[in-house]
Amino acid sequence: MSGNSIGKVFVLTTWGESHGAAIGAVVDGCPPGLDLEERDIQRELDRRRPGRGAAVSPRLEEDRVEILSGVFEGRTTGTPISLVIRNRDRRSGDYSALKDVYRPGHGDYTYDRKYGLRDHRGGGRASGRETAARVAGGAVAKKLLQRENISILAYTVELGGVGIKDFDEEAIGATSMFCPDREAAENMEAVIEEARKKGDTIGGVVEIVVRGCPAGLGEPVFDKFDGDLARAVMSIGTVKGVEIGAGFQTARMTGAACNDSLGPEGFRTNNAGGILAGITTGADIVMRVACKPISSIPSPQETLDRSGNPATVMVSGRHDLSVIPRIIPVCEAMTALVVADHLLRQKTIT
Amino acid sequence: MSGNSIGKVFVLTTWGESHGAAIGAVVDGCPPGLDLEERDIQRELDRRRPGRGAAVSPRLEEDRVEILSGVFEGRTTGTPISLVIRNRDRRSGDYSALKDVYRPGHGDYTYDRKYGLRDHRGGGRASGRETAARVAGGAVAKKLLQRENISILAYTVELGGVGIKDFDEEAIGATSMFCPDREAAENMEAVIEEARKKGDTIGGVVEIVVRGCPAGLGEPVFDKFDGDLARAVMSIGTVKGVEIGAGFQTARMTGAACNDSLGPEGFRTNNAGGILAGITTGADIVMRVACKPISSIPSPQETLDRSGNPATVMVSGRHDLSVIPRIIPVCEAMTALVVADHLLRQKTIT
Amino acid sequence: MSGNSIGKVFVLTTWGESHGAAIGAVVDGCPPGLDLEERDIQRELDRRRPGRGAAVSPRLEEDRVEILSGVFEGRTTGTPISLVIRNRDRRSGDYSALKDVYRPGHGDYTYDRKYGLRDHRGGGRASGRETAARVAGGAVAKKLLQRENISILAYTVELGGVGIKDFDEEAIGATSMFCPDREAAENMEAVIEEARKKGDTIGGVVEIVVRGCPAGLGEPVFDKFDGDLARAVMSIGTVKGVEIGAGFQTARMTGAACNDSLGPEGFRTNNAGGILAGITTGADIVMRVACKPISSIPSPQETLDRSGNPATVMVSGRHDLSVIPRIIPVCEAMTALVVADHLLRQKTIT
Amino acid sequence: MSGNSIGKVFVLTTWGESHGAAIGAVVDGCPPGLDLEERDIQRELDRRRPGRGAAVSPRLEEDRVEILSGVFEGRTTGTPISLVIRNRDRRSGDYSALKDVYRPGHGDYTYDRKYGLRDHRGGGRASGRETAARVAGGAVAKKLLQRENISILAYTVELGGVGIKDFDEEAIGATSMFCPDREAAENMEAVIEEARKKGDTIGGVVEIVVRGCPAGLGEPVFDKFDGDLARAVMSIGTVKGVEIGAGFQTARMTGAACNDSLGPEGFRTNNAGGILAGITTGADIVMRVACKPISSIPSPQETLDRSGNPATVMVSGRHDLSVIPRIIPVCEAMTALVVADHLLRQKTIT
Repeated sequence: MSGNSIGKVFVLTTWGESHGAAIGAVVDGCPPGLDLEERDIQRELDRRRPGRGAAVSPRLEEDRVEILSGVFEGRTTGTPISLVIRNRDRRSGDYSALKDVYRPGHGDYTYDRKYGLRDHRGGGRASGRETAARVAGGAVAKKLLQRENISILAYTVELGGVGIKDFDEEAIGATSMFCPDREAAENMEAVIEEARKKGDTIGGVVEIVVRGCPAGLGEPVFDKFDGDLARAVMSIGTVKGVEIGAGFQTARMTGAACNDSLGPEGFRTNNAGGILAGITTGADIVMRVACKPISSIPSPQETLDRSGNPATVMVSGRHDLSVIPRIIPVCEAMTALVVADHLLRQKTIT
Repeated sequence: MSGNSIGKVFVLTTWGESHGAAIGAVVDGCPPGLDLEERDIQRELDRRRPGRGAAVSPRLEEDRVEILSGVFEGRTTGTPISLVIRNRDRRSGDYSALKDVYRPGHGDYTYDRKYGLRDHRGGGRASGRETAARVAGGAVAKKLLQRENISILAYTVELGGVGIKDFDEEAIGATSMFCPDREAAENMEAVIEEARKKGDTIGGVVEIVVRGCPAGLGEPVFDKFDGDLARAVMSIGTVKGVEIGAGFQTARMTGAACNDSLGPEGFRTNNAGGILAGITTGADIVMRVACKPISSIPSPQETLDRSGNPATVMVSGRHDLSVIPRIIPVCEAMTALVVADHLLRQKTIT
Repeated sequence: MSGNSIGKVFVLTTWGESHGAAIGAVVDGCPPGLDLEERDIQRELDRRRPGRGAAVSPRLEEDRVEILSGVFEGRTTGTPISLVIRNRDRRSGDYSALKDVYRPGHGDYTYDRKYGLRDHRGGGRASGRETAARVAGGAVAKKLLQRENISILAYTVELGGVGIKDFDEEAIGATSMFCPDREAAENMEAVIEEARKKGDTIGGVVEIVVRGCPAGLGEPVFDKFDGDLARAVMSIGTVKGVEIGAGFQTARMTGAACNDSLGPEGFRTNNAGGILAGITTGADIVMRVACKPISSIPSPQETLDRSGNPATVMVSGRHDLSVIPRIIPVCEAMTALVVADHLLRQKTIT
Repeated sequence: MSGNSIGKVFVLTTWGESHGAAIGAVVDGCPPGLDLEERDIQRELDRRRPGRGAAVSPRLEEDRVEILSGVFEGRTTGTPISLVIRNRDRRSGDYSALKDVYRPGHGDYTYDRKYGLRDHRGGGRASGRETAARVAGGAVAKKLLQRENISILAYTVELGGVGIKDFDEEAIGATSMFCPDREAAENMEAVIEEARKKGDTIGGVVEIVVRGCPAGLGEPVFDKFDGDLARAVMSIGTVKGVEIGAGFQTARMTGAACNDSLGPEGFRTNNAGGILAGITTGADIVMRVACKPISSIPSPQETLDRSGNPATVMVSGRHDLSVIPRIIPVCEAMTALVVADHLLRQKTIT
């Protein structure tokens, strides 16, 4: 109930602090007989640490995952899959200056208000590092989806005000920004460089598409497929908005324009984003998430210290300039977890 | 697990179909000793049936709630509160024509794909009528919040392309559109009239504000306060997008501009919408939801019938032209449920 | 979380107080397409009010169940099934004398300590009457099991010190005590008569058998099939002990004697009661529950009042002398709920 | 939902197989600010491996626990506490002979039926070794209870037919059997020696007492305190029966004898075992569990192999002769988890 688990059948629990001994995940509810090796998970973790592109921090995060349980002779057994990633780069000293001061935009203040104490090292539990455990757990979900021919693809559609104008799927894997528009990708890199010079950070928008998802997934009325997706991606620290299909645009449409008419070939448009009344239609599921700029900026900011006195804080350290592109595999992971969960849930009524 | 319950401590379960015998709700986890009468709930239900304004359907929904359990001598006892609303206006005949055809934008197709059969009368479980049960349950949550001096206010900020330019809180209660800008409200009415003439429907945007919410609510990492809010409002049928604080705008901001600096007087801006790292800051919680136009339009639409043959459907019946303003109390109810739930959850760690 | 729901996939929630307006149940997670009518449920409710035998109270409980949702044209739709039973016999006056005094063996004292207030009329939520809602919900589970050729049978094996020596299945339906030994049944009736004369009550033991349950149900490690069964039956007010298979006898056996050897014909003995390592073996599931004597006795007892002063209480009213036989269908219902839940859970891994 | 978690607020999840890389636990929901060190947990683990007494296997299990998260500067932070115990003694070779044969009394057969495959090494997930993770998690619960002055004590009251006749609390810590009757303890040792000579194993009964538990814990109607206790201890592999207070004896008592009368000094007897209507009374909570003899016996037994052919199996290896006394700290752990969970749950209504 303390919120470190997600899913009802396919359940991911994550644990760990940024600068503790390790972070990790437990996946419960994964069906038996699924091929799974450490490299399936490692591959996803490596995508989260692309080492390419302008937005990425030079901090070394060599994330090596170890499967401690739930897999026997290369296949899942149906018992919990425990995944551990040791924290190798634990220079807590970097963070001691932040012990008693609340960084704007971070969880420092709210954690203190909630718990009365906190592990201040690198954001502790609120660190973006926690998402590595999500990616690890999501990799297991992806293996399950792969077996069902369901695929998930996330990519950048906007960064620092630069939006895409073209969609070339091959560009996603080829550009450092996971961007389907090569020209836009270059402009995005430029915007990031500019931000770096100014000592600032930038935000953007990621689009996520699920292909091959069968119709009929999602539960009325509170566990709608879109509601669960929204919660899953909104649980990523920097996400401040989410929309399904035509999303906020639907608010400006008329019913005649918004309704997706249905013909023998399927839905003729997809303003619904593949979900009607909370249940998948069989069309592509399409979702966009708004990512705020990274809160750690290398410029002085006004704030308070723990005693309530005014203070100035400047977050040096090694930080990314944008959560994009590193958030991309995290978005995919969270989406994969929701799809896997509902896929298994649907089995209970058939 | 079938999705008809929401909340972990303060739990609402709803049941009922649009044209069944009744709809209802069970509220479990409400603390004992709270003053509660049927009129507390009736008041909220009546707000959902405002009977005022251009957008509202002439269909008579005299929703009379009855408290069947959990209240003794005017106070809650800590046991489940069962609420029932009989369906009085059950002209199922109106709907028999829709038995074998999938209305675009509705759940007809997806329910059939999910369950293999469905109660087609008026949308059955997927009907907007189900939200009356949410409003009833939310009214109990509101009573709890009232005791803690937490208030929730939802209002229209955009309808059919008309946005607000002014914020006069008194106008919310005075305009048929629950709109804080009287001039915009008039324009919204005009837009609705226009849609009516064209046989079409329109969408809009609702903003929800929570005032007086203490800091420290929300659970890392998956049950973040914003994630739970997003899921709660996204579970309302017509909501296709949700954003917290500056929302999608943050994607176009720099970190320096987006971070809310903190002074002795509190947060100086509220781009975070009252939530940092998934935990409330004590500032107002601000959220906006995008509502698509109502899918039932009195014009012919192309679709399929249950056998997969092309068909044309025209939804006559008595329908609203916009979910706004009737969705307003529903938004408040869903928000109240989330706040009440997290308020009680926080008690477990203190 | 407040404990009024049981099950993870097939979920029963009950609500209602003994002397409130009604009691009821919501069944969520029942698969669609199951034949279900009110009489399927009424039949089970009527078994709970057998009107036969010496142990039964003359209090008239005409329990008429009404299905308010989740069933359309005689079949379940997959949406929540709401069941309501109006309380017709609400002579609260009978109970006003008990408002400020704690009846020994009842929940009066503990409810007050827990909630600070309570609905004292007839035990309120703690009344045995609440079990009618369980029987109603269990009837739905039984319909599901019936489709899978799983049957549940509960019967009396001991009452007031009289144990069975014979097992004649036909006698169960034919004796007022649901006892498979006709001679023992007569002796049980005599023991009850004796208790009535003395102004006392008696306890007994019920055995429950599940036949046709497939192997492989139950979840390691905490949701073992036997653990869930134990919790389900222990949640019936008067149950103070539960054992599976040879139960407490196994504590006095050696491993060689206790282990059920396995041959081509199946398990040769059933000391395990059909469950190994928490998972069903395919053999009959066998369980016994110890029922304490009814706490309401028509003789003076020493106790305290709400102010902490010594008091004497004599519970007159109309009460049974033993929970047996009325607990029999309740035991079956609780068992059916567990089997149905695990049956559906197992589908998620296959 | 796959059953590897227990608790609703204070939640323990365990993972790991007997001969995998490690076993472990995640404790979620533990309040912040609790003093916790590895040695608090190690102490309990060491009690599970007493190294004393006749019943214990010579297999070396040097269980070293490591806290990987959730504790900062010696105190819990409110975030998940991850505990890992590496499996050091992994001679899987010992078990390869059992790969294709079903050991009577074990989960081999049922796991195969459930999952279609299994980790056969040493029982895999069904091994008693999994209980080390429970003990680790329970140690955290105990720390919480300690702060509230609640203590838990488990001890042997019967072994191989030898029951206690005396209660000397000091003897519990002094005898190898954790037995409060020194003379009975000696007889128990003798019975174990006898079983060893015969190549057999024996069962027994453990009593568990909770002292200092406040009144008012436990949730009507399905999450009764006794129901949750029953489930928790029944989830230990070898437990086949559980009774609360006078337990099965109440079935032979009259109401007048069974009811615990209440005086200014409190309850005068404790047949209820400290629980009325599922809610704690404030009196000692008393429970007994029946433990079947260990299923691994060093004598030939008839069974089937995976192909369904008759086979003979003789479990050599290093095994205990009785789960007692090693089950004692496991019983305490499971009890502590339930008490901690309900202690925190009760906070939500106050």
